[in-house]
Amino acid sequence: MAENRTSTLLKAPASDSAAALHTAATIVDGLQISNWDRATLEELRAGGISGVNATAAVWEGPADTLKAIGDWYQLAAKNPDLLTMARTADDIRRAKLDNRIAVLLGFQNTSSFGDDYKLVEVFHELGVKIAQLTYNIQNLVGGACYEPEDSGLTRFGRTIISEMNRVGMLIDLSHVGNRTSLDAVEASVAPIAITHSNPTWFVENPRNKPDEVIRAVTEAGGMLGCCLYPLVIGGKKTTLEQFCQMVARLVDELGPTRIGLGSDCTRNWDDKFVGWLRNGRWQPEGETKATWPEWPEWFVGPEDFPRLTDGLLKVGLDETTIRGVLGENWLNLFDDVFPGRKIS
Amino acid sequence: MAENRTSTLLKAPASDSAAALHTAATIVDGLQISNWDRATLEELRAGGISGVNATAAVWEGPADTLKAIGDWYQLAAKNPDLLTMARTADDIRRAKLDNRIAVLLGFQNTSSFGDDYKLVEVFHELGVKIAQLTYNIQNLVGGACYEPEDSGLTRFGRTIISEMNRVGMLIDLSHVGNRTSLDAVEASVAPIAITHSNPTWFVENPRNKPDEVIRAVTEAGGMLGCCLYPLVIGGKKTTLEQFCQMVARLVDELGPTRIGLGSDCTRNWDDKFVGWLRNGRWQPEGETKATWPEWPEWFVGPEDFPRLTDGLLKVGLDETTIRGVLGENWLNLFDDVFPGRKIS
Repeated sequence: MAENRTSTLLKAPASDSAAALHTAATIVDGLQISNWDRATLEELRAGGISGVNATAAVWEGPADTLKAIGDWYQLAAKNPDLLTMARTADDIRRAKLDNRIAVLLGFQNTSSFGDDYKLVEVFHELGVKIAQLTYNIQNLVGGACYEPEDSGLTRFGRTIISEMNRVGMLIDLSHVGNRTSLDAVEASVAPIAITHSNPTWFVENPRNKPDEVIRAVTEAGGMLGCCLYPLVIGGKKTTLEQFCQMVARLVDELGPTRIGLGSDCTRNWDDKFVGWLRNGRWQPEGETKATWPEWPEWFVGPEDFPRLTDGLLKVGLDETTIRGVLGENWLNLFDDVFPGRKIS
Repeated sequence: MAENRTSTLLKAPASDSAAALHTAATIVDGLQISNWDRATLEELRAGGISGVNATAAVWEGPADTLKAIGDWYQLAAKNPDLLTMARTADDIRRAKLDNRIAVLLGFQNTSSFGDDYKLVEVFHELGVKIAQLTYNIQNLVGGACYEPEDSGLTRFGRTIISEMNRVGMLIDLSHVGNRTSLDAVEASVAPIAITHSNPTWFVENPRNKPDEVIRAVTEAGGMLGCCLYPLVIGGKKTTLEQFCQMVARLVDELGPTRIGLGSDCTRNWDDKFVGWLRNGRWQPEGETKATWPEWPEWFVGPEDFPRLTDGLLKVGLDETTIRGVLGENWLNLFDDVFPGRKIS
């Protein structure tokens, strides 16, 4: 069930220069967790997006993850004009030329690996190029952003990071606890990403990141993907200008190559899915039924990406910086991380 | 626990011309189900083998199969000088030049797909290029060689065959029932193999195949891999000459391009594993403990492949035919099947 758009007017960027810049840029979304079908993919194409880190597993174990990946392959086989399963940044660059959507499969958890580090390479072989270490709760790998105690990176977590480094799977810290995040940056020989979070100075929230974590990640060659999810921008009342000013300040503080976007779009789901995200199988659903938050009027889905380009121009960022933030920074990070590292 | 070899003398082929032919040929074994490690792979190299269909799952479901494939990837990562994971016939041809062993992952059952046809493509993506439809007992796909009743190919079986055709996974009928085998040949739009069986006219046994099945397979462009497993050659008393005469008669009856070898080597296992093969999880192990059969003195493992070349020369086959039987026929079949088929 896609949300109804409030106005078709919103789809158009406000200026000709923004439209030209948006069309020229290779746009990569650092994270979406939509309920994918042809219509949902078409929204990305309408928004000018060429590459996306699409979540293929959150609470799933190995067998359920296989099923999810099987669904992706079937979707690709049935929609070759629209969808290509990507393994490299060049696959995304090619998708831009073909007017297709290049999907990098991603995990928002390490549950798909079970307790078996060898499954890192197995899922990497299936096209899983990005994995978040934990999702909201403590797991075998480390502590999470909503857990009162953060164990730090575990011994298994160190093995997982070493395997991810070796095979070329990008580590994502978005829902990870701060202590585990710092441990991960220390343990990893490859750059790390926070694909979809904002700084706590923008909105104080367990899902956002203190300066210490953001600086550790970006100083080690990693990136922060600024996130549009209502919770981490302070709700639907937050303006496009405020969001873009946050991006501009991050560019100023951390450099133009360290910042990208990770919208966290959750298109085409009903409320049952937000309950699954919140509770998985680890706790009962509880009294209060989980519901999706309301998105700000200026960003309700991938079709609104042109508005971000417009907003970034308006807060004074130059075109090169904006092209970096819209996607080229992600592409460069993927070029660096995806070939893997020799692990002695 | 590798069996002790009776004599190092046995390793050498008996004639210079056999040795030259063996060295020149690209040798492919249609099936081995050994307990793989570096030493076991070295046996293949010693025997002059460049490519092998190595069984990665028999009774395993999806999750356990992932673990088995993870083990293969680790073995390959640790032994790059010796082992390469192959996806094409050209990978095997290259391995011959590199003096390495190219492994095609194979299933001896369809249990790894569970009840989900989408997993065909998922496991194909992991390098599983060959799958037998059933292993000894009736399953979701069809009837098996030891089952008193053969259901024929099921509706799920038709979907599986269609998916295997589409993605380019070779169908194997070795342990499949005769009725299901004939149904499979009818249903498949790509050639099919019997990777490791002999004709019932050589040894009457449920694991061997009547003329009707062999002819259906080979007339549809498929192949029969002649098998060395003691059970299907009539035990250890059978001579190399008798085996090679069987091959020569098959070449005579079916043509020189329809015949290959599938040794069914089972190296480095203890008796517990033969119990697992026989009983899986579908029946208790029973009173009599399963034990491995004794192999004939002239063929106890992959190192004895040169003796086959010698034997095939001695029964009067020409060099081109022998090169075909030793591996080139498999390579041509792989070239045909592995790219997949367009399914309307």
